[in-house]
Amino acid sequence: MVMKVHGAVLSTAAMRVFATLYEKDLEFEFVPVDMGAGEHKQERFLALNPFGQVPAFEDGDLQLFESRAITQYIAFAYKDKGTPLLCEGKPMATVSVWMEVEAHQFDTAASKLQWELMFKSIFGMATDAAVVEENEAKLSKVLDVYEARLSQSKYMGGDCFTLADLHHLPVLTNLMGTTVKKLFDARPKVSAWAADIMARPAWAKVLAMKNQQ
Amino acid sequence: MVMKVHGAVLSTAAMRVFATLYEKDLEFEFVPVDMGAGEHKQERFLALNPFGQVPAFEDGDLQLFESRAITQYIAFAYKDKGTPLLCEGKPMATVSVWMEVEAHQFDTAASKLQWELMFKSIFGMATDAAVVEENEAKLSKVLDVYEARLSQSKYMGGDCFTLADLHHLPVLTNLMGTTVKKLFDARPKVSAWAADIMARPAWAKVLAMKNQQ
Repeated sequence: MVMKVHGAVLSTAAMRVFATLYEKDLEFEFVPVDMGAGEHKQERFLALNPFGQVPAFEDGDLQLFESRAITQYIAFAYKDKGTPLLCEGKPMATVSVWMEVEAHQFDTAASKLQWELMFKSIFGMATDAAVVEENEAKLSKVLDVYEARLSQSKYMGGDCFTLADLHHLPVLTNLMGTTVKKLFDARPKVSAWAADIMARPAWAKVLAMKNQQ
Repeated sequence: MVMKVHGAVLSTAAMRVFATLYEKDLEFEFVPVDMGAGEHKQERFLALNPFGQVPAFEDGDLQLFESRAITQYIAFAYKDKGTPLLCEGKPMATVSVWMEVEAHQFDTAASKLQWELMFKSIFGMATDAAVVEENEAKLSKVLDVYEARLSQSKYMGGDCFTLADLHHLPVLTNLMGTTVKKLFDARPKVSAWAADIMARPAWAKVLAMKNQQ
């Protein structure tokens, strides 16, 4: 039975899962959830994810949610397919550190900026300049650490592209369409890394899903 | 060479790592970081964690930071010692989901409540009632999902105690000393689970470290 991803193409969390599946060259069925109609808060979806957030994922009788848990499952369960995305043994501990950094350092500031500078205008809401300023300062500090990190290793987790890079893609790509792009452009290593990972063919396939909608 | 944890006994992130080491019955050296004196922002510590946050961890020449990456490393690298704390294969994917839930659903609300109701009074600052109300509402929704989850399985990740439970311990225990305790008490399965995991001998050893200071 083919894997199913229940989600929405505008969901950055769902995009993380799509990118992983394309990197792994795996077939999957995309089951659109109409969030505008509140489908993610209805009983059928809550049975897949009790928190009512996309994506939810099915592989046979295994049901998962939380995007970063889904990507890790796919990378472990299908490790011999497509791009490895993980390492084994001690190097994996370092990949794990940088996956946590993405979730707890990068994403906390980056997602707030994405909300203020992208989603709020989609919903016709006004940007809060103070929130933007505060989170640009936070993101700048994170990107300073990234600049130093990427001077030591080609990718966040080590010498090859892993989930520690991939997890950044959705929010990073959205921010590149906003004024926050200047924070990336000002740092040569970060800027080269961002261009490199955004140019991956698997990522182009995810962006094509958005354009098909 | 014995493992080293650089941290502070009041740090909930460091407590997560201590609990894991005690569960695994592993020897370690605790290297106190004087956060009051700003040691965590000084060069020597920044070489261990560029974000200047405790804990940092060393196992021989491997240096790690981010508490949840450290606990996973210890659980994988020393899987034959003490409590397993993880599962292999498909059940691990479910443990992974509930580890993400702790980090992204529970901790976001619980840490804000801990700050307002515990740390602010330690630092002589006033509690913000509106922040408490907002985050009690968020935590209540999370605990409703936990109540349902713990009606299906004894622990968050499945039938045995894993990191998906352990990661909750520091903030959970702190909240039990505040008015937020009522939210746990109101849910029988959550309340029994909390009592169970807080009664673990390894956790008592972590709390004893605090009392020795």
